[in-house]
Amino acid sequence: MIRNDTTFVIVGLGLLGGSYAMGLKEAGYGVLGVARRQETIDHALAHHMIDAGTLDPEEFLDQADIVVFALYPHIMIDWIHEHQNAFRPGTLLTDVSGVKVNVADKVQSFLRDDVEFIAAHPMAGRETRGIEYANTEMFHDANYIIVPTEKNTKEAVETSRQLAEILQFHHIATLTMQEHDEMIGFLSQLTHVIAVSLMNTHDNSHLVEYTGDSFRDLTRIAKINETMWSELFLLNKKILLSEIDAFAKELEHFRDTLAKEDVDEMKRLFIQSTERRKKFDKLK
Amino acid sequence: MIRNDTTFVIVGLGLLGGSYAMGLKEAGYGVLGVARRQETIDHALAHHMIDAGTLDPEEFLDQADIVVFALYPHIMIDWIHEHQNAFRPGTLLTDVSGVKVNVADKVQSFLRDDVEFIAAHPMAGRETRGIEYANTEMFHDANYIIVPTEKNTKEAVETSRQLAEILQFHHIATLTMQEHDEMIGFLSQLTHVIAVSLMNTHDNSHLVEYTGDSFRDLTRIAKINETMWSELFLLNKKILLSEIDAFAKELEHFRDTLAKEDVDEMKRLFIQSTERRKKFDKLK
Repeated sequence: MIRNDTTFVIVGLGLLGGSYAMGLKEAGYGVLGVARRQETIDHALAHHMIDAGTLDPEEFLDQADIVVFALYPHIMIDWIHEHQNAFRPGTLLTDVSGVKVNVADKVQSFLRDDVEFIAAHPMAGRETRGIEYANTEMFHDANYIIVPTEKNTKEAVETSRQLAEILQFHHIATLTMQEHDEMIGFLSQLTHVIAVSLMNTHDNSHLVEYTGDSFRDLTRIAKINETMWSELFLLNKKILLSEIDAFAKELEHFRDTLAKEDVDEMKRLFIQSTERRKKFDKLK
Repeated sequence: MIRNDTTFVIVGLGLLGGSYAMGLKEAGYGVLGVARRQETIDHALAHHMIDAGTLDPEEFLDQADIVVFALYPHIMIDWIHEHQNAFRPGTLLTDVSGVKVNVADKVQSFLRDDVEFIAAHPMAGRETRGIEYANTEMFHDANYIIVPTEKNTKEAVETSRQLAEILQFHHIATLTMQEHDEMIGFLSQLTHVIAVSLMNTHDNSHLVEYTGDSFRDLTRIAKINETMWSELFLLNKKILLSEIDAFAKELEHFRDTLAKEDVDEMKRLFIQSTERRKKFDKLK
Protein backbone atom coordinates (compact mmCIF):
# COMPACT_ATOMS: atom_id res chain seq x y z
CA MET A 1 0.00 0.00 0.00
CA ILE A 2 1.01 3.61 -0.46
CA ARG A 3 1.92 5.23 2.83
CA ASN A 4 2.79 8.83 3.66
CA ASP A 5 6.50 8.01 3.40
CA THR A 6 6.29 6.04 0.15
CA THR A 7 9.01 7.03 -2.31
CA PHE A 8 8.29 6.94 -6.04
CA VAL A 9 10.87 6.73 -8.76
CA ILE A 10 9.56 7.93 -12.11
CA VAL A 11 11.54 6.57 -15.05
CA GLY A 12 10.94 8.74 -18.10
CA LEU A 13 9.93 12.37 -17.59
CA GLY A 14 7.90 13.07 -20.70
CA LEU A 15 4.33 14.30 -20.85
CA LEU A 16 2.95 11.42 -18.79
CA GLY A 17 5.91 10.79 -16.51
CA GLY A 18 6.16 14.51 -15.79
CA SER A 19 2.47 14.66 -14.98
CA TYR A 20 2.74 11.68 -12.63
CA ALA A 21 5.68 13.34 -10.87
CA MET A 22 3.75 16.60 -10.57
CA GLY A 23 0.64 14.91 -9.16
CA LEU A 24 2.58 12.80 -6.66
CA LYS A 25 4.67 15.73 -5.47
CA GLU A 26 1.57 17.87 -5.05
CA ALA A 27 0.07 15.07 -2.94
CA GLY A 28 3.15 15.15 -0.69
CA TYR A 29 5.03 12.01 -1.69
CA GLY A 30 8.74 11.63 -2.25
CA VAL A 31 9.42 11.70 -6.00
CA LEU A 32 12.72 10.90 -7.68
CA GLY A 33 13.12 11.23 -11.44
CA VAL A 34 15.21 9.37 -14.00
CA ALA A 35 15.62 10.89 -17.45
CA ARG A 36 17.91 10.70 -20.44
CA ARG A 37 18.64 14.42 -20.72
CA GLN A 38 19.88 16.82 -18.06
CA GLU A 39 17.58 19.59 -19.36
CA THR A 40 14.59 17.44 -18.52
CA ILE A 41 15.77 17.03 -14.96
CA ASP A 42 16.56 20.73 -14.69
CA HIS A 43 13.03 21.54 -15.86
CA ALA A 44 11.48 19.08 -13.40
CA LEU A 45 13.53 20.46 -10.51
CA ALA A 46 12.81 24.08 -11.44
CA HIS A 47 9.09 23.31 -11.49
CA HIS A 48 9.18 21.34 -8.22
CA MET A 49 8.04 18.16 -9.90
CA ILE A 50 10.75 15.98 -8.33
CA ASP A 51 12.86 16.01 -5.18
CA ALA A 52 15.94 14.88 -7.08
CA GLY A 53 16.83 13.70 -10.55
CA THR A 54 19.47 11.59 -12.23
CA LEU A 55 20.63 10.34 -15.59
CA ASP A 56 21.89 7.13 -13.95
CA PRO A 57 19.20 4.45 -14.27
CA GLU A 58 20.14 2.65 -11.06
CA GLU A 59 21.08 5.52 -8.75
CA PHE A 60 17.70 5.80 -6.99
CA LEU A 61 16.51 2.23 -7.10
CA ASP A 62 17.63 1.40 -3.56
CA GLN A 63 15.28 4.14 -2.32
CA ALA A 64 12.26 3.18 -4.44
CA ASP A 65 9.08 1.69 -3.01
CA ILE A 66 7.25 2.08 -6.30
CA VAL A 67 8.83 2.59 -9.74
CA VAL A 68 6.61 4.06 -12.47
CA PHE A 69 7.83 3.47 -16.02
CA ALA A 70 6.64 6.19 -18.38
CA LEU A 71 8.62 4.92 -21.37
CA TYR A 72 7.78 3.46 -24.75
CA PRO A 73 6.99 -0.24 -24.25
CA HIS A 74 10.10 -1.71 -25.90
CA ILE A 75 12.37 0.69 -24.04
CA MET A 76 10.71 -0.22 -20.75
CA ILE A 77 11.09 -3.95 -21.41
CA ASP A 78 14.80 -3.56 -22.16
CA TRP A 79 15.29 -1.23 -19.19
CA ILE A 80 13.76 -3.61 -16.68
CA HIS A 81 15.64 -6.54 -18.18
CA GLU A 82 18.94 -4.74 -17.86
CA HIS A 83 18.54 -3.13 -14.45
CA GLN A 84 16.32 -5.48 -12.48
CA ASN A 85 19.10 -6.58 -10.20
CA ALA A 86 19.20 -3.07 -8.74
CA PHE A 87 15.62 -3.14 -7.39
CA ARG A 88 15.13 -3.66 -3.65
CA PRO A 89 13.17 -6.81 -2.76
CA GLY A 90 9.47 -5.93 -2.51
CA THR A 91 9.60 -3.03 -4.97
CA LEU A 92 6.39 -2.56 -6.94
CA LEU A 93 6.76 -1.66 -10.63
CA THR A 94 4.04 -0.21 -12.80
CA ASP A 95 3.70 1.39 -16.22
CA VAL A 96 1.57 3.55 -18.52
CA SER A 97 1.76 1.52 -21.75
CA GLY A 98 -1.13 1.73 -24.19
CA VAL A 99 -0.94 -1.97 -25.13
CA LYS A 100 -0.64 -4.85 -22.65
CA VAL A 101 -0.33 -8.23 -24.42
CA ASN A 102 3.36 -8.82 -25.24
CA VAL A 103 4.27 -6.06 -22.81
CA ALA A 104 2.99 -6.81 -19.31
CA ASP A 105 3.23 -10.58 -19.73
CA LYS A 106 6.70 -10.21 -21.23
CA VAL A 107 8.02 -8.19 -18.29
CA GLN A 108 6.46 -10.63 -15.84
CA SER A 109 8.01 -13.58 -17.67
CA PHE A 110 11.57 -12.57 -16.82
CA LEU A 111 11.09 -10.44 -13.70
CA ARG A 112 12.72 -11.42 -10.39
CA ASP A 113 10.36 -13.27 -8.07
CA ASP A 114 10.74 -10.82 -5.19
CA VAL A 115 9.63 -7.80 -7.26
CA GLU A 116 6.12 -7.31 -8.72
CA PHE A 117 4.99 -5.62 -11.93
CA ILE A 118 1.38 -4.45 -12.11
CA ALA A 119 0.30 -3.13 -15.50
CA ALA A 120 -1.81 -0.01 -15.76
CA HIS A 121 -2.97 2.28 -18.53
CA PRO A 122 -3.80 5.89 -17.72
CA MET A 123 -6.00 6.86 -20.68
CA ALA A 124 -4.84 10.43 -20.62
CA GLY A 125 -2.74 12.25 -23.12
CA ARG A 126 -2.56 15.16 -25.42
CA GLU A 127 -1.42 15.82 -28.96
CA THR A 128 1.74 17.21 -27.44
CA ARG A 129 4.81 15.58 -25.99
CA GLY A 130 7.47 16.53 -23.48
CA ILE A 131 7.65 17.54 -19.87
CA GLU A 132 6.86 21.19 -20.68
CA TYR A 133 3.25 20.12 -21.29
CA ALA A 134 2.96 18.09 -18.08
CA ASN A 135 -0.19 18.84 -16.09
CA THR A 136 -2.39 16.97 -13.66
CA GLU A 137 -5.72 18.26 -14.99
CA MET A 138 -5.60 15.76 -17.85
CA PHE A 139 -6.13 12.96 -15.31
CA HIS A 140 -9.32 14.43 -13.90
CA ASP A 141 -11.57 13.46 -16.79
CA ALA A 142 -9.66 10.32 -17.76
CA ASN A 143 -9.94 6.58 -17.18
CA TYR A 144 -7.28 4.56 -15.41
CA ILE A 145 -7.30 0.88 -16.34
CA ILE A 146 -5.58 -1.64 -14.08
CA VAL A 147 -4.56 -4.76 -16.01
CA PRO A 148 -3.67 -7.54 -13.58
CA THR A 149 -2.51 -10.99 -14.66
CA GLU A 150 -2.41 -14.26 -12.72
CA LYS A 151 1.05 -13.24 -11.54
CA ASN A 152 -0.29 -10.26 -9.59
CA THR A 153 -1.23 -10.04 -5.93
CA LYS A 154 -4.42 -8.45 -4.67
CA GLU A 155 -2.33 -5.97 -2.79
CA ALA A 156 -0.63 -4.74 -5.97
CA VAL A 157 -4.02 -4.21 -7.63
CA GLU A 158 -5.12 -2.25 -4.59
CA THR A 159 -1.95 -0.16 -4.62
CA SER A 160 -2.46 0.58 -8.31
CA ARG A 161 -5.99 1.76 -7.55
CA GLN A 162 -4.66 3.93 -4.72
CA LEU A 163 -2.16 5.52 -7.11
CA ALA A 164 -4.99 6.37 -9.53
CA GLU A 165 -6.98 7.89 -6.68
CA ILE A 166 -4.05 10.04 -5.59
CA LEU A 167 -3.70 11.30 -9.16
CA GLN A 168 -7.48 11.95 -9.20
CA PHE A 169 -8.41 9.92 -12.22
CA HIS A 170 -12.09 10.22 -13.07
CA HIS A 171 -12.81 6.52 -13.36
CA ILE A 172 -10.82 3.42 -12.35
CA ALA A 173 -11.50 0.02 -13.88
CA THR A 174 -9.91 -3.42 -14.11
CA LEU A 175 -9.59 -5.43 -17.32
CA THR A 176 -7.67 -8.49 -18.48
CA MET A 177 -4.85 -7.91 -20.98
CA GLN A 178 -6.97 -9.22 -23.85
CA GLU A 179 -10.03 -7.14 -22.88
CA HIS A 180 -7.85 -4.08 -22.55
CA ASP A 181 -6.21 -4.46 -25.94
CA GLU A 182 -9.54 -5.11 -27.68
CA MET A 183 -11.10 -2.06 -26.06
CA ILE A 184 -8.11 0.10 -27.00
CA GLY A 185 -8.06 -1.35 -30.52
CA PHE A 186 -11.57 -0.15 -31.14
CA LEU A 187 -12.00 3.00 -29.06
CA SER A 188 -8.56 4.51 -29.45
CA GLN A 189 -6.45 2.92 -32.16
CA LEU A 190 -9.16 2.58 -34.82
CA THR A 191 -10.25 6.18 -34.23
CA HIS A 192 -6.68 7.32 -34.78
CA VAL A 193 -6.42 5.28 -38.00
CA ILE A 194 -9.64 6.92 -39.23
CA ALA A 195 -8.55 10.45 -38.37
CA VAL A 196 -5.13 9.97 -39.96
CA SER A 197 -6.62 8.41 -43.10
CA LEU A 198 -9.23 11.15 -43.45
CA MET A 199 -6.53 13.79 -43.15
CA ASN A 200 -4.43 11.97 -45.72
CA THR A 201 -7.27 11.48 -48.22
CA HIS A 202 -6.65 14.83 -49.90
CA ASP A 203 -4.42 17.82 -49.48
CA ASN A 204 -7.14 19.94 -47.96
CA SER A 205 -5.43 23.18 -47.13
CA HIS A 206 -7.66 25.13 -49.53
CA LEU A 207 -10.66 24.03 -47.48
CA VAL A 208 -9.46 25.47 -44.17
CA GLU A 209 -11.69 28.52 -44.34
CA TYR A 210 -14.84 26.43 -44.77
CA THR A 211 -14.07 23.91 -42.08
CA GLY A 212 -16.62 23.47 -39.34
CA ASP A 213 -16.64 21.57 -36.07
CA SER A 214 -17.46 18.17 -37.61
CA PHE A 215 -14.23 17.98 -39.55
CA ARG A 216 -12.13 19.54 -36.80
CA ASP A 217 -13.48 17.13 -34.18
CA LEU A 218 -12.97 14.14 -36.44
CA THR A 219 -9.37 14.98 -37.27
CA ARG A 220 -8.08 16.44 -34.00
CA ILE A 221 -6.28 13.17 -33.24
CA ALA A 222 -4.64 13.11 -36.69
CA LYS A 223 -1.89 15.06 -34.93
CA ILE A 224 -0.03 12.09 -33.62
CA ASN A 225 3.35 11.09 -32.20
CA GLU A 226 4.60 8.87 -35.02
CA THR A 227 7.16 6.97 -32.94
CA MET A 228 4.87 6.02 -30.09
CA TRP A 229 1.80 5.20 -32.16
CA SER A 230 3.58 3.08 -34.74
CA GLU A 231 5.00 1.03 -31.86
CA LEU A 232 1.58 0.68 -30.19
CA PHE A 233 -0.10 -0.25 -33.48
CA LEU A 234 2.43 -2.98 -34.22
CA LEU A 235 2.10 -4.38 -30.71
CA ASN A 236 -1.68 -4.63 -31.20
CA LYS A 237 -1.54 -5.46 -34.91
CA LYS A 238 -3.89 -8.45 -34.99
CA ILE A 239 -6.71 -6.78 -33.07
CA LEU A 240 -6.32 -3.47 -34.88
CA LEU A 241 -6.39 -5.09 -38.33
CA SER A 242 -9.61 -6.84 -37.43
CA GLU A 243 -11.13 -3.56 -36.20
CA ILE A 244 -10.10 -1.74 -39.39
CA ASP A 245 -11.67 -4.55 -41.43
CA ALA A 246 -14.92 -4.40 -39.46
CA PHE A 247 -15.14 -0.65 -39.94
CA ALA A 248 -14.22 -0.85 -43.64
CA LYS A 249 -16.99 -3.40 -44.13
CA GLU A 250 -19.54 -1.13 -42.47
CA LEU A 251 -18.31 1.80 -44.59
CA GLU A 252 -18.66 -0.27 -47.73
CA HIS A 253 -22.19 -1.21 -46.72
CA PHE A 254 -23.04 2.46 -46.39
CA ARG A 255 -21.48 3.15 -49.78
CA ASP A 256 -23.57 0.43 -51.42
CA THR A 257 -26.71 1.68 -49.70
CA LEU A 258 -26.11 5.14 -51.12
CA ALA A 259 -25.19 3.81 -54.56
CA LYS A 260 -28.45 1.81 -54.68
CA GLU A 261 -30.39 4.80 -53.29
CA ASP A 262 -31.86 2.49 -50.66
CA VAL A 263 -33.36 5.25 -48.55
CA ASP A 264 -35.01 2.91 -46.05
CA GLU A 265 -31.71 1.21 -45.21
CA MET A 266 -29.90 4.56 -45.07
CA LYS A 267 -32.44 5.86 -42.57
CA ARG A 268 -32.16 2.65 -40.54
CA LEU A 269 -28.38 3.15 -40.35
CA PHE A 270 -28.82 6.78 -39.25
CA ILE A 271 -31.39 5.85 -36.63
CA GLN A 272 -29.18 3.05 -35.30
CA SER A 273 -26.10 5.27 -35.07
CA THR A 274 -28.15 7.98 -33.37
CA GLU A 275 -29.54 5.57 -30.78
CA ARG A 276 -26.15 4.06 -30.07
CA ARG A 277 -24.41 7.39 -29.82
CA LYS A 278 -26.98 8.69 -27.33
CA LYS A 279 -25.79 6.09 -24.82
CA PHE A 280 -22.35 7.63 -24.98
CA ASP A 281 -23.71 11.04 -24.06
CA LYS A 282 -25.32 10.06 -20.82
CA LEU A 283 -22.24 9.19 -18.85
CA LYS A 284 -20.20 12.14 -20.01
CA MET B 1 -30.44 45.79 -50.27
CA ILE B 2 -31.75 45.31 -46.78
CA ARG B 3 -33.17 48.54 -45.37
CA ASN B 4 -34.52 49.33 -41.93
CA ASP B 5 -38.07 48.67 -43.12
CA THR B 6 -37.32 45.41 -44.95
CA THR B 7 -39.84 42.68 -44.18
CA PHE B 8 -38.73 39.06 -44.09
CA VAL B 9 -40.98 36.07 -44.49
CA ILE B 10 -39.45 32.88 -43.07
CA VAL B 11 -40.97 29.73 -44.53
CA GLY B 12 -40.31 26.80 -42.21
CA LEU B 13 -39.75 27.49 -38.52
CA GLY B 14 -37.50 24.62 -37.49
CA LEU B 15 -34.08 24.90 -35.88
CA LEU B 16 -32.62 27.05 -38.67
CA GLY B 17 -35.75 28.98 -39.67
CA GLY B 18 -36.46 29.75 -36.03
CA SER B 19 -32.90 30.93 -35.51
CA TYR B 20 -33.08 33.19 -38.59
CA ALA B 21 -36.36 34.66 -37.28
CA MET B 22 -34.84 35.22 -33.86
CA GLY B 23 -31.74 36.93 -35.25
CA LEU B 24 -33.68 39.17 -37.63
CA LYS B 25 -36.21 40.18 -34.99
CA GLU B 26 -33.41 40.97 -32.54
CA ALA B 27 -31.85 43.17 -35.23
CA GLY B 28 -35.13 45.08 -35.55
CA TYR B 29 -36.53 43.84 -38.85
CA GLY B 30 -40.10 42.86 -39.60
CA VAL B 31 -40.38 39.06 -39.49
CA LEU B 32 -43.38 37.02 -40.58
CA GLY B 33 -43.43 33.25 -40.19
CA VAL B 34 -45.01 30.46 -42.19
CA ALA B 35 -45.24 27.00 -40.61
CA ARG B 36 -47.17 23.78 -40.93
CA ARG B 37 -48.29 23.50 -37.31
CA GLN B 38 -50.05 26.07 -35.16
CA GLU B 39 -47.94 25.06 -32.12
CA THR B 40 -44.84 26.17 -33.96
CA ILE B 41 -46.33 29.58 -34.60
CA ASP B 42 -47.53 29.85 -31.02
CA HIS B 43 -44.02 29.07 -29.80
CA ALA B 44 -42.48 31.64 -32.16
CA LEU B 45 -44.96 34.33 -31.10
CA ALA B 46 -44.55 33.55 -27.39
CA HIS B 47 -40.77 33.89 -27.75
CA HIS B 48 -40.98 37.09 -29.83
CA MET B 49 -39.32 35.46 -32.81
CA ILE B 50 -41.92 36.70 -35.33
CA ASP B 51 -44.36 39.59 -35.62
CA ALA B 52 -47.08 37.36 -36.99
CA GLY B 53 -47.44 33.78 -38.17
CA THR B 54 -49.66 31.80 -40.49
CA LEU B 55 -50.33 28.28 -41.75
CA ASP B 56 -51.38 29.73 -45.12
CA PRO B 57 -48.40 29.66 -47.48
CA GLU B 58 -49.47 32.70 -49.48
CA GLU B 59 -50.95 34.97 -46.79
CA PHE B 60 -47.83 37.07 -46.19
CA LEU B 61 -46.25 37.01 -49.63
CA ASP B 62 -47.62 40.41 -50.67
CA GLN B 63 -45.75 41.97 -47.74
CA ALA B 64 -42.44 40.15 -48.31
CA ASP B 65 -39.25 41.88 -49.48
CA ILE B 66 -37.16 38.80 -48.80
CA VAL B 67 -38.39 35.23 -48.36
CA VAL B 68 -36.09 32.78 -46.57
CA PHE B 69 -36.84 29.10 -47.18
CA ALA B 70 -35.74 26.93 -44.28
CA LEU B 71 -37.23 23.72 -45.66
CA TYR B 72 -35.89 20.41 -46.89
CA PRO B 73 -34.77 20.94 -50.51
CA HIS B 74 -37.50 18.93 -52.25
CA ILE B 75 -40.23 20.58 -50.16
CA MET B 76 -38.82 24.02 -51.01
CA ILE B 77 -38.70 23.25 -54.72
CA ASP B 78 -42.34 22.09 -54.71
CA TRP B 79 -43.39 25.03 -52.54
CA ILE B 80 -41.88 27.67 -54.83
CA HIS B 81 -43.24 25.90 -57.89
CA GLU B 82 -46.75 25.91 -56.45
CA HIS B 83 -46.90 29.38 -54.93
CA GLN B 84 -44.65 31.52 -57.09
CA ASN B 85 -47.50 33.49 -58.57
CA ALA B 86 -48.16 35.00 -55.13
CA PHE B 87 -44.73 36.72 -54.84
CA ARG B 88 -44.59 40.47 -55.45
CA PRO B 89 -42.38 41.50 -58.38
CA GLY B 90 -38.87 42.18 -57.11
CA THR B 91 -39.06 39.76 -54.16
CA LEU B 92 -35.72 38.16 -53.28
CA LEU B 93 -35.80 34.47 -52.33
CA THR B 94 -33.04 32.64 -50.51
CA ASP B 95 -32.52 29.28 -48.79
CA VAL B 96 -30.42 27.28 -46.34
CA SER B 97 -30.04 24.02 -48.28
CA GLY B 98 -26.96 21.91 -47.68
CA VAL B 99 -26.64 20.88 -51.35
CA LYS B 100 -26.88 23.25 -54.32
CA VAL B 101 -26.63 21.40 -57.65
CA ASN B 102 -30.12 20.17 -58.61
CA VAL B 103 -31.58 22.54 -56.05
CA ALA B 104 -30.59 26.14 -56.76
CA ASP B 105 -30.39 25.62 -60.52
CA LYS B 106 -33.70 23.76 -60.48
CA VAL B 107 -35.53 26.59 -58.71
CA GLN B 108 -33.97 29.13 -61.04
CA SER B 109 -35.00 27.10 -64.09
CA PHE B 110 -38.73 27.58 -63.49
CA LEU B 111 -38.80 30.78 -61.42
CA ARG B 112 -40.64 33.88 -62.66
CA ASP B 113 -38.35 36.41 -64.34
CA ASP B 114 -39.30 39.27 -62.00
CA VAL B 115 -38.29 37.38 -58.84
CA GLU B 116 -34.74 36.33 -57.92
CA PHE B 117 -33.48 33.28 -56.03
CA ILE B 118 -30.02 33.52 -54.46
CA ALA B 119 -28.75 30.29 -52.93
CA ALA B 120 -26.97 30.31 -49.60
CA HIS B 121 -25.78 27.73 -47.11
CA PRO B 122 -25.44 28.71 -43.47
CA MET B 123 -23.05 26.01 -42.17
CA ALA B 124 -24.60 26.03 -38.74
CA GLY B 125 -26.64 23.36 -37.07
CA ARG B 126 -26.90 21.10 -34.12
CA GLU B 127 -27.73 17.47 -33.50
CA THR B 128 -31.17 18.67 -32.49
CA ARG B 129 -34.19 19.74 -34.51
CA GLY B 130 -37.17 21.97 -33.91
CA ILE B 131 -37.84 25.60 -33.05
CA GLU B 132 -37.35 24.94 -29.32
CA TYR B 133 -33.61 24.70 -29.98
CA ALA B 134 -33.44 27.87 -32.06
CA ASN B 135 -30.61 30.20 -31.06
CA THR B 136 -28.49 32.82 -32.75
CA GLU B 137 -25.20 31.87 -31.06
CA MET B 138 -24.75 28.98 -33.47
CA PHE B 139 -24.16 31.49 -36.28
CA HIS B 140 -21.33 33.28 -34.51
CA ASP B 141 -18.70 30.61 -35.14
CA ALA B 142 -20.16 29.38 -38.43
CA ASN B 143 -19.52 29.91 -42.14
CA TYR B 144 -22.10 31.35 -44.50
CA ILE B 145 -21.59 30.35 -48.11
CA ILE B 146 -23.23 32.36 -50.87
CA VAL B 147 -23.70 30.28 -54.01
CA PRO B 148 -24.54 32.54 -56.96
CA THR B 149 -25.18 31.27 -60.47
CA GLU B 150 -25.11 33.14 -63.79
CA LYS B 151 -28.78 33.95 -63.19
CA ASN B 152 -27.98 36.08 -60.15
CA THR B 153 -27.45 39.83 -59.94
CA LYS B 154 -24.61 41.46 -58.06
CA GLU B 155 -27.16 43.15 -55.87
CA ALA B 156 -28.64 39.84 -54.74
CA VAL B 157 -25.18 38.57 -53.80
CA GLU B 158 -24.61 41.75 -51.84
CA THR B 159 -27.97 41.40 -50.07
CA SER B 160 -27.16 37.81 -49.18
CA ARG B 161 -23.89 38.99 -47.65
CA GLN B 162 -25.74 41.69 -45.73
CA LEU B 163 -28.15 39.08 -44.34
CA ALA B 164 -25.20 37.00 -43.13
CA GLU B 165 -23.68 40.06 -41.50
CA ILE B 166 -26.93 40.88 -39.71
CA LEU B 167 -27.04 37.32 -38.39
CA GLN B 168 -23.38 37.70 -37.32
CA PHE B 169 -21.91 34.75 -39.15
CA HIS B 170 -18.23 34.30 -38.43
CA HIS B 171 -17.07 34.01 -42.02
CA ILE B 172 -18.80 34.76 -45.33
CA ALA B 173 -17.61 33.23 -48.60
CA THR B 174 -18.77 32.77 -52.18
CA LEU B 175 -18.53 29.49 -54.10
CA THR B 176 -19.97 28.07 -57.30
CA MET B 177 -22.57 25.30 -56.95
CA GLN B 178 -20.03 22.67 -57.94
CA GLU B 179 -17.35 23.99 -55.59
CA HIS B 180 -19.87 24.16 -52.78
CA ASP B 181 -21.09 20.59 -53.23
CA GLU B 182 -17.55 19.21 -53.47
CA MET B 183 -16.51 21.05 -50.33
CA ILE B 184 -19.59 19.83 -48.46
CA GLY B 185 -19.13 16.30 -49.80
CA PHE B 186 -15.72 16.09 -48.22
CA LEU B 187 -15.87 18.25 -45.11
CA SER B 188 -19.37 17.53 -43.96
CA GLN B 189 -21.00 14.56 -45.68
CA LEU B 190 -18.00 12.22 -45.66
CA THR B 191 -17.38 12.99 -41.98
CA HIS B 192 -20.97 12.07 -41.19
CA VAL B 193 -20.66 8.81 -43.16
CA ILE B 194 -17.53 7.96 -41.16
CA ALA B 195 -19.09 8.77 -37.78
CA VAL B 196 -22.25 6.80 -38.59
CA SER B 197 -20.27 3.82 -39.89
CA LEU B 198 -17.96 3.80 -36.87
CA MET B 199 -20.94 3.87 -34.52
CA ASN B 200 -22.54 1.05 -36.49
CA THR B 201 -19.42 -1.14 -36.60
CA HIS B 202 -20.21 -2.81 -33.28
CA ASP B 203 -22.78 -2.56 -30.56
CA ASN B 204 -20.49 -0.74 -28.19
CA SER B 205 -22.63 -0.01 -25.19
CA HIS B 206 -20.39 -2.12 -22.95
CA LEU B 207 -17.50 0.22 -23.79
CA VAL B 208 -19.19 3.40 -22.59
CA GLU B 209 -17.31 3.52 -19.32
CA TYR B 210 -13.93 3.40 -21.04
CA THR B 211 -14.69 5.94 -23.70
CA GLY B 212 -12.42 8.93 -23.96
CA ASP B 213 -12.54 12.13 -25.93
CA SER B 214 -11.20 10.65 -29.19
CA PHE B 215 -14.15 8.35 -29.67
CA ARG B 216 -16.70 10.88 -28.42
CA ASP B 217 -15.39 13.58 -30.75
CA LEU B 218 -15.32 11.24 -33.72
CA THR B 219 -18.89 10.04 -33.23
CA ARG B 220 -20.67 13.17 -32.02
CA ILE B 221 -22.17 13.69 -35.48
CA ALA B 222 -23.41 10.08 -35.60
CA LYS B 223 -26.54 11.55 -34.01
CA ILE B 224 -28.19 12.62 -37.20
CA ASN B 225 -31.58 13.63 -38.60
CA GLU B 226 -32.26 10.66 -40.85
CA THR B 227 -34.81 12.41 -43.08
CA MET B 228 -32.74 15.47 -43.87
CA TRP B 229 -29.41 13.73 -44.30
CA SER B 230 -30.68 10.92 -46.51
CA GLU B 231 -32.13 13.61 -48.80
CA LEU B 232 -28.91 15.62 -48.82
CA PHE B 233 -26.79 12.51 -49.47
CA LEU B 234 -28.92 11.46 -52.44
CA LEU B 235 -28.80 14.97 -53.88
CA ASN B 236 -25.00 14.87 -53.72
CA LYS B 237 -24.64 11.17 -54.46
CA LYS B 238 -22.00 11.28 -57.16
CA ILE B 239 -19.59 13.51 -55.27
CA LEU B 240 -20.15 11.74 -51.96
CA LEU B 241 -19.54 8.29 -53.47
CA SER B 242 -16.26 9.49 -54.88
CA GLU B 243 -15.25 10.95 -51.49
CA ILE B 244 -16.13 7.69 -49.71
CA ASP B 245 -14.06 5.79 -52.28
CA ALA B 246 -11.07 8.10 -51.83
CA PHE B 247 -11.21 7.72 -48.06
CA ALA B 248 -11.71 3.93 -48.27
CA LYS B 249 -8.64 3.70 -50.48
CA GLU B 250 -6.55 5.66 -47.99
CA LEU B 251 -7.85 3.49 -45.16
CA GLU B 252 -6.94 0.36 -47.08
CA HIS B 253 -3.46 1.73 -47.68
CA PHE B 254 -3.06 2.21 -43.95
CA ARG B 255 -4.33 -1.31 -43.34
CA ASP B 256 -1.79 -2.76 -45.78
CA THR B 257 1.00 -0.70 -44.25
CA LEU B 258 0.19 -2.11 -40.82
CA ALA B 259 -0.21 -5.65 -42.14
CA LYS B 260 3.23 -5.45 -43.79
CA GLU B 261 4.69 -3.80 -40.67
CA ASP B 262 6.11 -1.08 -42.89
CA VAL B 263 7.08 1.23 -40.05
CA ASP B 264 8.70 3.85 -42.27
CA GLU B 265 5.54 4.30 -44.33
CA MET B 266 3.38 4.31 -41.21
CA LYS B 267 5.48 7.09 -39.72
CA ARG B 268 5.32 9.01 -43.01
CA LEU B 269 1.52 8.80 -42.91
CA PHE B 270 1.44 10.01 -39.30
CA ILE B 271 3.81 12.88 -40.03
CA GLN B 272 1.78 13.91 -43.08
CA SER B 273 -1.53 13.85 -41.20
CA THR B 274 0.04 15.81 -38.35
CA GLU B 275 1.40 18.47 -40.68
CA ARG B 276 -1.88 18.79 -42.57
CA ARG B 277 -3.99 18.90 -39.43
CA LYS B 278 -1.85 21.67 -37.96
CA LYS B 279 -2.99 24.01 -40.73
CA PHE B 280 -6.56 23.52 -39.57
CA ASP B 281 -5.66 24.64 -36.05
CA LYS B 282 -4.27 28.01 -36.95
CA LEU B 283 -7.43 29.61 -38.22
CA LYS B 284 -9.65 28.33 -35.48
